[in-house]
Amino acid sequence: MSSSSLRAELQQAPELFENVLARFFQENAERYAYGDLFEPLYLDITEFVARRGKRIRPMLMLGSYRIFGGDRSFEDHSLLRAALSLELLHSFILIHDDVIDQSERRRRLPTFHKLVEERLGKIEDAARVGENVAVVVGDILFAMAVDTLRSTDFPSPLRDAALSHFLRYISDTGAGEVYDILLGTRDIARVEESDIMRMYTLKTTRYTFEAPLVLGALLAGMDDDHLRELTELIEPVGLAFQIQNDLIEYHQFKGVDRLRQTDILEGKKTLLLRVAYDQLVDVDRSFLQLCLSTRTSNDASVSKIEQLIDKSGAVGLLTQRMEGLFQKAETALENSSFTPEQRDGLREAFSLVRQQTQHTGTQ
Amino acid sequence: MSSSSLRAELQQAPELFENVLARFFQENAERYAYGDLFEPLYLDITEFVARRGKRIRPMLMLGSYRIFGGDRSFEDHSLLRAALSLELLHSFILIHDDVIDQSERRRRLPTFHKLVEERLGKIEDAARVGENVAVVVGDILFAMAVDTLRSTDFPSPLRDAALSHFLRYISDTGAGEVYDILLGTRDIARVEESDIMRMYTLKTTRYTFEAPLVLGALLAGMDDDHLRELTELIEPVGLAFQIQNDLIEYHQFKGVDRLRQTDILEGKKTLLLRVAYDQLVDVDRSFLQLCLSTRTSNDASVSKIEQLIDKSGAVGLLTQRMEGLFQKAETALENSSFTPEQRDGLREAFSLVRQQTQHTGTQ
Repeated sequence: MSSSSLRAELQQAPELFENVLARFFQENAERYAYGDLFEPLYLDITEFVARRGKRIRPMLMLGSYRIFGGDRSFEDHSLLRAALSLELLHSFILIHDDVIDQSERRRRLPTFHKLVEERLGKIEDAARVGENVAVVVGDILFAMAVDTLRSTDFPSPLRDAALSHFLRYISDTGAGEVYDILLGTRDIARVEESDIMRMYTLKTTRYTFEAPLVLGALLAGMDDDHLRELTELIEPVGLAFQIQNDLIEYHQFKGVDRLRQTDILEGKKTLLLRVAYDQLVDVDRSFLQLCLSTRTSNDASVSKIEQLIDKSGAVGLLTQRMEGLFQKAETALENSSFTPEQRDGLREAFSLVRQQTQHTGTQ
Repeated sequence: MSSSSLRAELQQAPELFENVLARFFQENAERYAYGDLFEPLYLDITEFVARRGKRIRPMLMLGSYRIFGGDRSFEDHSLLRAALSLELLHSFILIHDDVIDQSERRRRLPTFHKLVEERLGKIEDAARVGENVAVVVGDILFAMAVDTLRSTDFPSPLRDAALSHFLRYISDTGAGEVYDILLGTRDIARVEESDIMRMYTLKTTRYTFEAPLVLGALLAGMDDDHLRELTELIEPVGLAFQIQNDLIEYHQFKGVDRLRQTDILEGKKTLLLRVAYDQLVDVDRSFLQLCLSTRTSNDASVSKIEQLIDKSGAVGLLTQRMEGLFQKAETALENSSFTPEQRDGLREAFSLVRQQTQHTGTQ
């Protein structure tokens, strides 16, 4: 299919997707009718998943399915449910992530554990109870996500391969999250760039880009060799988007709303920070380490870190590296065994994601 | 098969099971080779799952499979892997549970988050980082558990039905955990007995008794009507075991090691506590509420709570109720449509579990 007809078809997809999402929670209300204590949580889950995100993952999956020859309509219930499983997975990961990072806001509303905490009112340990409930609700969403993919009507071997990949992506994402947590405890001088790259790939690329594109292609019938080739194409793109994400967050809040530089405040070891450290002279490095190690979430220390990052030239270097990665992906695509139409389709998909995420990242 | 030959066969099962468990982690080492930072965690996961538990769930599953006519040998790789999936599920649930309860010991060794915390040494937030890593490792074990069941070689429709049930049990267990957490925040007077019973059924019976027995029967080829009948038989047994569990923990530590009355110390709303409250006169009730609400984990307040529980006669009442539930299950079994051999097999399975758990519960 041509990339313009793909674009046209994808424009209809978000509405179809939101409908199937709403219907999913209506149809499953009885299954999850665990009584009075659980009921408000079911509504919270519904509200949380339904919050307007970019739906990058379901849209990439649908796009990939069509690019690689899948012939079901975008109105097909099972196809939409497979796309939904990725969004449920995303919600589960966000809920656990937000507990881990003790984040307070998600998609301009309270994070899940904050929702629960607020409803509890003034009881002892409300914050902790909110987090505990959110961990368990994340687990329930995980089960929902897997079961949603399982219960589609794709032929058994395809469905089985899809489930196998899906579960693998969850482990990979978990391993990436472990890297994120553990690197967060280290001094920036002891964090290897290769560890950060590995963390980015495992934690984000796998389930944000690889999972949708591979699942879509797989359900469209792609063989293992081509799936491997597709996977290799995706890695540099995923990394490029992750760098774009870092740069966006940095620019967005720099100087204006420093207390939203959450990565810096949380002690995250981003590539931006690591490259900045590498570029600075010794005295500035020590100062950067000091600012990071105090972990005082105040405007002054974040401001100083920003100054050092700017001075290092890391933003320029990473912008170059990001462009290089997008270029690398383009070259690999050009040399791939995919048809010209398929290459155009993938280009189109990447450029749509790039447009969508240029201002607010991939969440 | 006769119940004596079932007993003989089940005596061989633990060794076969431990072997397949050890092999599983060896064979999967490469799959989870996420680099230096993850490697120690993979060893921790292996050690944690391999800790000598009672393996009630895998053994019940194997027993049920044989009772209901499954013809694979207990040495069959896929049959053992299906049993293993239940133990992996159990480990995932324990790890999240222990984080939620901030427990320090599990099977006479440190809980998972404590293991991680200890290795981190003296860094800021080591306790929190340990918990965060444990949440994610639980997620990874969840994915492992589902994938282990998925990758067995049972016929596709059976495997699919098994996965569907498995995922459902995980949601149920999660809902039970939510009840446990939320009831923990309430005054005992505001906790309904029916909520506690529901919590017990969802949180423990489902994945400890129903999951193994139903999965074993299902993989042996049982039809839906019989599966429903089996499920109904299990509910009173599960509740009886849960009451037995409460009573064991209470007796075990009473007066001797009060600081291990973890349920009381954690503010858990057990049936024992609720029945005690019901039986006490007003002045004692108020005193009980006071002791519970201060939540000071000191010997004196736990001692006072123990005195009030003893005075209430709740232990005797619950012992009666437990016996009544076992009797109810026996009557239902007698009136069931299962063959005499199948009934004997189930009786044997329940009595084995009862023997095994008489001193230390179902963990």
